[in-house]
Amino acid sequence: MTLDETRFAVVAGTTETAAIDGISGIGTTPELIAHTPRADLEIVEYGRVVDSPVVPIDPDGGPTPAVVTRVAHELLGFETTLVDAGMAEDGPVPTVTVGETSGEDIRNVDPVPNAADVYRSARRLGRSFPEERLFVGETIPGGTTTALGVLTALGEDIGVSSSLPENPVELKRRVVDSALDSNELAEGDAANAPLDAVQSAGDPVLAGVAGLAVGALSTGTEVTLAGGTQMLAAAALVRHAGVTSPLSVATTSFIADDESTDLRSAADRLDVSMTVSRPRFDGRNHVALERYRSGEPKEGVGMGGALALLDDAEVSASQFTDAVVEISDRLLEATDLSIDRVQATD
Amino acid sequence: MTLDETRFAVVAGTTETAAIDGISGIGTTPELIAHTPRADLEIVEYGRVVDSPVVPIDPDGGPTPAVVTRVAHELLGFETTLVDAGMAEDGPVPTVTVGETSGEDIRNVDPVPNAADVYRSARRLGRSFPEERLFVGETIPGGTTTALGVLTALGEDIGVSSSLPENPVELKRRVVDSALDSNELAEGDAANAPLDAVQSAGDPVLAGVAGLAVGALSTGTEVTLAGGTQMLAAAALVRHAGVTSPLSVATTSFIADDESTDLRSAADRLDVSMTVSRPRFDGRNHVALERYRSGEPKEGVGMGGALALLDDAEVSASQFTDAVVEISDRLLEATDLSIDRVQATD
Repeated sequence: MTLDETRFAVVAGTTETAAIDGISGIGTTPELIAHTPRADLEIVEYGRVVDSPVVPIDPDGGPTPAVVTRVAHELLGFETTLVDAGMAEDGPVPTVTVGETSGEDIRNVDPVPNAADVYRSARRLGRSFPEERLFVGETIPGGTTTALGVLTALGEDIGVSSSLPENPVELKRRVVDSALDSNELAEGDAANAPLDAVQSAGDPVLAGVAGLAVGALSTGTEVTLAGGTQMLAAAALVRHAGVTSPLSVATTSFIADDESTDLRSAADRLDVSMTVSRPRFDGRNHVALERYRSGEPKEGVGMGGALALLDDAEVSASQFTDAVVEISDRLLEATDLSIDRVQATD
Repeated sequence: MTLDETRFAVVAGTTETAAIDGISGIGTTPELIAHTPRADLEIVEYGRVVDSPVVPIDPDGGPTPAVVTRVAHELLGFETTLVDAGMAEDGPVPTVTVGETSGEDIRNVDPVPNAADVYRSARRLGRSFPEERLFVGETIPGGTTTALGVLTALGEDIGVSSSLPENPVELKRRVVDSALDSNELAEGDAANAPLDAVQSAGDPVLAGVAGLAVGALSTGTEVTLAGGTQMLAAAALVRHAGVTSPLSVATTSFIADDESTDLRSAADRLDVSMTVSRPRFDGRNHVALERYRSGEPKEGVGMGGALALLDDAEVSASQFTDAVVEISDRLLEATDLSIDRVQATD
C-alpha cells in the first residue's frame, strides 16, 4: 500500500479529569491542560508552535510525541486530518469538529453527555476518507485515566500506562472506582454498550476515535489505532459496538514493555493485531533525543503509528533523528519566547 | 522557492446575494448555493465529493474549478488549508473557522456585521503560516457581485466578471447600487475603510481573504491571491488597509481576456503584480476538458494560482489532463448517485 493511500488522523480534546492532582504528566495547571492538545495539533500541522501560548516541551528538552508524528508527515508525505472532539480552545489549525465540549471529571455524573453525538459525527467523517488505510492518534491530557474508566466499565480491565515516569496507577484506579460509583455502574455493566461506557467513565476523544474507526471500517478502509492504553480502550469500544472487522493497534516498545499494562493479551482477547515499534533515537547527542530514548514520552499523538510507518518506508535513522532535532530545537527556541508570545496574543 | 515552502489556502463562505434571480452561475437554488462551497472543499481535500449532497458538476460535464486546484495539490504536494468564513453548513472537511455566519443579501443594511471579526481571525491565521509563500483562493457563489460592491464602496471601480456565459453585469450593478443606497454610501465613501466596505457591500470571504493576506504579509510571507475580480477586490482591501508590501494576483486568461473587466489596469493602479495562465486542457477528447477549454468555469477555488504553480513546476500537459479527467469522471459518477446519497445522509 502506498503512502498516497494513507491518511493519519489525530483526535484532540480535553477532560477535566486531567486536573485531578497527580493524574496528568503532560500539563500541570488547568491552563496547560487546555493548551497542550492545541499545541500538539499546531506541531503536526506546521512543524512548530505558531499561536499556542504554551509550547509542549520543557526547558530541559522534555518533548512531546507530536514531534515524531510531524517528522513522519514531513518525511513520508501522507495526508493528515486533525479532529476536534472537544478542545478547550480554538487555534489557527484546520480541524473537523466532531464535538463541541470538554469532558468533565469522570467522578461526576455523566462526564461525557454528548458521547453519542461525537461518535456519530466521527463515524460520518470516517466513512468519508477515500484512502485505503487510516491511522488514528490522540492528544488528551489525562486520557489514560479515562481509558481505564472505559475499559473497566466494559469489563475489559487491563493495566494502564502513563506519561509520568512514576505511574500513579493506584490513584487512577481510585478515580475510576469513584467514577463508576457516581454513575451507578459495576465493572462490566457497560459491556456491549460502548456509548454508555464513554458517557459514564470516558472522554470525548475516545468517542471520536471509536467513531472514526467504525466509519472507516464500514467502507473497507484498513484501520490502525496508533497508541497504547487509550487505543486499546478505543478498540474495545469498536468490538463492543459489534464490529468484527480486522483492526490493528500500533504502539511503542515503551508501552508494550511497561509492566503495569498487559496490552498484548488484551489485544488478543479483543482480536486486535498489534505492531510494536522500538524508536531509534540513537546516533546523535541531543537533549531531546536523550529524553525520547529514556521513554519520555512513551506514547501519544499517534507516535507508535508514525514509527511503524517510518519503519515500513525504511527511512534512515539519521534522516529521522535530524528531523526530530530540527523540530525540537525550534520548540526549545519558542519556549524562550513563550512569555512574550502570551502577552502579544490578541 | 520550493513547493515545501508553499501553502494554498481556500476561503469558503456564502452570501444570500447569490440567491438574487440571475446573479449566480454556480448554484440556482438556495440549497445549491449553500452546498457548493462545501463540495468544493471536499474536492480539494479528498479529490472527490465524500459527503456533500450536491456534486458541483452538471450531467453534461460542466465542471468546478476545484478540480484544477485539487490536481495541482495531488501533482505538486503543497500543503492546503481550508478556511470557513461562514459556510451555511458543515461537512467532514478540516477547516479553520474564521467566521460563523453567512453574508446577507447586500441590499440589506449591514450584510456582513461580523466583517471585523472575520478579518481579525483570518489575520491571526495568516500570521501563523510558517511557509515562505501563500496562495489564497475562494469559493462563494455570488462572490463577483459582492466584489463589485466592495470595489465600488472603496472607489476602485473596475468591470466585473461572472461564472455565467452571459455576464449579467447590468443586474450586478443594480444590486450594488441598491446595496450602497441601503447602507447610505456613495461610491468611494469607504476609501481607506476596508472593513466598512465589506460590512456594507461585501461578503465574509472577502474579509477572510484580506485578513489572511495582511497577516501573512506581516510576517514576510509572499502572498499570491489566486482568482479574478474577487481577488482584485481583496487586493484593494489590503491596499486600503494601508499595507504596501508586494502583492500578486494570479488568474486565468479567461478572466484576463474578459472584455467586461479591466483587471490589468486595476492591478497596476493598486500596485499589484499579475500573472495570467492559459489553461492547457488540450490533447484529449473528454466532455469535461471541452467545457474547461470553452472557459466554463473561468475561475474560482484558486484555479488561476493552481495553473501558475503547475506551469512553474513544468508538469506535462498529459499528466495534467489525465488527472483532470480522472477526477471529473469520479464526480460525474457521483452525480448519478447523488439522489440516493441525499436520502442516505443521516
